[in-house]
Amino acid sequence: MTDLIIRNATVVTCDPAGTVIPDGGVAVANGRITHVASSADLAPLAASARQVIDGSGHILMPGIVNTHCHAADSLFRGLVENLPLEPWLQTVWKAEGAILNPDTSRLGSVLGFAELLLSGVTTVMDMFWYPFETVKAARSVGIRVSTGGIFFDPAGVTALAVDKRVAEAERFCETFKDADDVLPAVLPHGAYTVGPENLKKAKAVAERHGALFCTHAAETRAEQADVTGRYGRTIIRHLDHYRLLDQRTVLAHCVHLDDEELDILARTGASVAHNPMSNMKLASGFARIPEMLDRGITVTLGTDGAISGNDLDMWMGLRLAATLHKGFTGRADVISTRQALDMLTLNGARALAASDRIGSLEVGKFADMVMVDVKRPHAVPLFDPMTHLVYSTAKSDVRQVFLGGEQVVTDGELTRLAIADTIAEVEQLTPRIKASIA
Amino acid sequence: MTDLIIRNATVVTCDPAGTVIPDGGVAVANGRITHVASSADLAPLAASARQVIDGSGHILMPGIVNTHCHAADSLFRGLVENLPLEPWLQTVWKAEGAILNPDTSRLGSVLGFAELLLSGVTTVMDMFWYPFETVKAARSVGIRVSTGGIFFDPAGVTALAVDKRVAEAERFCETFKDADDVLPAVLPHGAYTVGPENLKKAKAVAERHGALFCTHAAETRAEQADVTGRYGRTIIRHLDHYRLLDQRTVLAHCVHLDDEELDILARTGASVAHNPMSNMKLASGFARIPEMLDRGITVTLGTDGAISGNDLDMWMGLRLAATLHKGFTGRADVISTRQALDMLTLNGARALAASDRIGSLEVGKFADMVMVDVKRPHAVPLFDPMTHLVYSTAKSDVRQVFLGGEQVVTDGELTRLAIADTIAEVEQLTPRIKASIA
Repeated sequence: MTDLIIRNATVVTCDPAGTVIPDGGVAVANGRITHVASSADLAPLAASARQVIDGSGHILMPGIVNTHCHAADSLFRGLVENLPLEPWLQTVWKAEGAILNPDTSRLGSVLGFAELLLSGVTTVMDMFWYPFETVKAARSVGIRVSTGGIFFDPAGVTALAVDKRVAEAERFCETFKDADDVLPAVLPHGAYTVGPENLKKAKAVAERHGALFCTHAAETRAEQADVTGRYGRTIIRHLDHYRLLDQRTVLAHCVHLDDEELDILARTGASVAHNPMSNMKLASGFARIPEMLDRGITVTLGTDGAISGNDLDMWMGLRLAATLHKGFTGRADVISTRQALDMLTLNGARALAASDRIGSLEVGKFADMVMVDVKRPHAVPLFDPMTHLVYSTAKSDVRQVFLGGEQVVTDGELTRLAIADTIAEVEQLTPRIKASIA
Repeated sequence: MTDLIIRNATVVTCDPAGTVIPDGGVAVANGRITHVASSADLAPLAASARQVIDGSGHILMPGIVNTHCHAADSLFRGLVENLPLEPWLQTVWKAEGAILNPDTSRLGSVLGFAELLLSGVTTVMDMFWYPFETVKAARSVGIRVSTGGIFFDPAGVTALAVDKRVAEAERFCETFKDADDVLPAVLPHGAYTVGPENLKKAKAVAERHGALFCTHAAETRAEQADVTGRYGRTIIRHLDHYRLLDQRTVLAHCVHLDDEELDILARTGASVAHNPMSNMKLASGFARIPEMLDRGITVTLGTDGAISGNDLDMWMGLRLAATLHKGFTGRADVISTRQALDMLTLNGARALAASDRIGSLEVGKFADMVMVDVKRPHAVPLFDPMTHLVYSTAKSDVRQVFLGGEQVVTDGELTRLAIADTIAEVEQLTPRIKASIA
């Protein structure tokens, strides 16, 4: 029994072969894709399908994968401006300390996840203080989330001793080991905020459960200098020295790496979450993305939190990833359209060790799908659909979003949640947030 | 008699003082702003006004000014990818030569202007082959346009001898000298495509009519080398040598300038149209915007054509202008929120010698106004409306646009034109465009 057919669309599968079907669609049963085919080939199935959607005038593509986010930090969007990372972080932490508890964290996560889902993101790796609340928020909106226990040696918001952090991380992995919509991870904040012993403890939890391991790495020169000064090794060497890097590792930023550090990433299979908007706004610099791609490193895209980039727009990140490095290297041929699109989709799935389930429209994968309107003035003419996605698509072109076959965005509106209520709650909290840094 | 009142909005006037009215609006009569005031102060006028619009949940701001565009090049959006400027330009010119005539140019201009207006741009400086068609297109959509005769020593699309170009430029200035919606300009393509004698002829026309003078300048290193090789002077020195620079000059790009060239711009009062997306995508480089601002140079924003940047998104340009130079200089405090917003609005008006009429919400100016929705998930919380405009607003947040008090965009749709017809015409032409470079 087919639950859903979408047809008459331009299908950009984002599969490893880069398959595009000019007039086609998908069939879905039990939340999984059963067919990716031309509209003609889908016709026999359509008669008995429960629902048939006309994809005319749209590109059908897989759900987007965002590999670095702090969704709940959307509560602090635009609060602290025009400061470099270190003083900025001190102010942010002050606000977080005053405002965050399980309830406000869940509220902020709902806000952030709503924004992400409306723009076509169906899977997000999220690092925040209350991972169980993060999951509740993700489920209320309808987005897959990779998250888990946080490690942070200073007190931070939750002020847990490391044994408590280990216990929480264990409990998280255990709780969600069989969940389709949660990809358990262990998330130490960074090598400058978590010492080697605790990094190793975090990694041990991840390994016991086959979970992902995600940390900030080499975002700024100051961070590199700090870690090098303390431990006698640059960050990537430091992480490698303690055998923390492998194919289940996602490193956010990686802006300031030398050649040998790039080689270490290539050798270990660790993935990079590139956050160009955040890196520009905080004056962190430009990651060496073309050289990472040349080395075969898995480069993915993240938004970081809205507190640094001011929104969670993966399409903006995609445009930046595709163009910034052309400007910076002076070479218009670096970052191909295909490479950019892979960063948005399949590479993200690979980084989360989930490319068997998400990241492309392929038979057997979850039916996480996005319909992009291509009949607006900024979308025509359309010579090549991949080029259009990378260089001309805006988040507002995303009209319909499906998670495991369930329509979670219809005509640009969330289906599971009345977002106006969330917005009203956030606005009620706003004066208190403003006062927190006064 | 008041024609229109908008009230209950957050008013970001973009006036020289940076005035923001938390709960306010404007009154409009005969296409001009008569009051900019609090909602309470507008109340007595509302009773007798023809139309009253509730601006709740919106920022009310002036129409955006785009100082560098080739709107009709939207016909070639996404046609030529991943090439540096010079080979890219050769391919573009091949396509232009095969496709462009007065009718297709007008069609392309309508498409481009529609995109601009929907995003809140109410004035655009546009350089294209058939300036009288450009005006027809602008009027059909409802946007002010600064344009006029093109100078180009190679044949180009129109293959006119220079005396014909002078005559056309004269005729254009004469025809539109009293038009509210046209700001006549003379537009030689660049110092590498127009020799000094013809540059002087173009400037003479501009001076006779008090028109603007606009040209590409120092977009790439190759262009600088070319001009220096031919004339023994870098581009800005070359233009200055022939006394072509003054307060009515708009120079597009200015990516590769040395210190003395920056000083020449400051001394002469020539304005810069910064096109960050185009400069990144074509690998041209990063203009020295913070140093320009330090010198008091009028920096404005342009989109360039969609053939280079793939869309005409001034909000994307704004975000880039505000963040790119932070990343490039390593200083998070360069480009203040206010400076960025000025580039989008009042500085554009100054560059077009029209700051007495457009660029801010002030009494006596044209009622060119934009209402930005601030009740979407990516817009809350909102601590400071200017920060929100610069760092979090997307083109799709623009819901209502007014040109001289006339509503030209209602709920995100054009009012003067059925854009679907334009899109259908463009799609009919698309196979021929594709074939033109085969």
